[in-house]
Amino acid sequence: MKTNTTNTQQWSQKDQKIAQEALKKAYTRETEALVAEINQKASQVTNINDIWALSDYLNSKRYNIDGKYDTRESTSIFVLAQLVKERWLTLDELTGLTPSTKAKVSALAKMS
Amino acid sequence: MKTNTTNTQQWSQKDQKIAQEALKKAYTRETEALVAEINQKASQVTNINDIWALSDYLNSKRYNIDGKYDTRESTSIFVLAQLVKERWLTLDELTGLTPSTKAKVSALAKMS
Repeated sequence: MKTNTTNTQQWSQKDQKIAQEALKKAYTRETEALVAEINQKASQVTNINDIWALSDYLNSKRYNIDGKYDTRESTSIFVLAQLVKERWLTLDELTGLTPSTKAKVSALAKMS
Repeated sequence: MKTNTTNTQQWSQKDQKIAQEALKKAYTRETEALVAEINQKASQVTNINDIWALSDYLNSKRYNIDGKYDTRESTSIFVLAQLVKERWLTLDELTGLTPSTKAKVSALAKMS
């Protein structure tokens, strides 16, 4: 019996390559944005509570980024959809993906 | 039976007050220095590895500071000695402590 849920779908080698490159692109954008944000945030730190808030923020960002860009997840339509939703990727950058896969990513990205 | 180890020694109210004020002073100095340090460090952050290193540094600082300034420990000669050793307090600022207690703090602070 063929399972056909989104979690277990087979990705072609071409789709895998496109997804991995898209992920790499999104990772570079998101981490560069974080560096700029921290440069700016840290210059506004004036007391120890600001420092601990910055620390909490970095811990949560790290957890989020480490999880999102886990390479084992590069062929997840959910991760791709999340990156599109967060604007680290555009749907155009997923051109070349199997149309049904791209359509799923697009539909998921529109969900709130 | 009277226990007489350094951990269970009785502190007079006067000693407790002196220790608590010294701790407060050291806390203000150490946290102000950390704010200045983070302002400076964060301006030099240029990539995501620097960000994660900053995050690790803040986590370790928080663990260290939260532990050191735990108010339940304000009458610990070990905490006072550590603060003297780290130069957040001077021995002069412990003037008024029972001489034997101050002498213990001084001796501990000299140990490496």
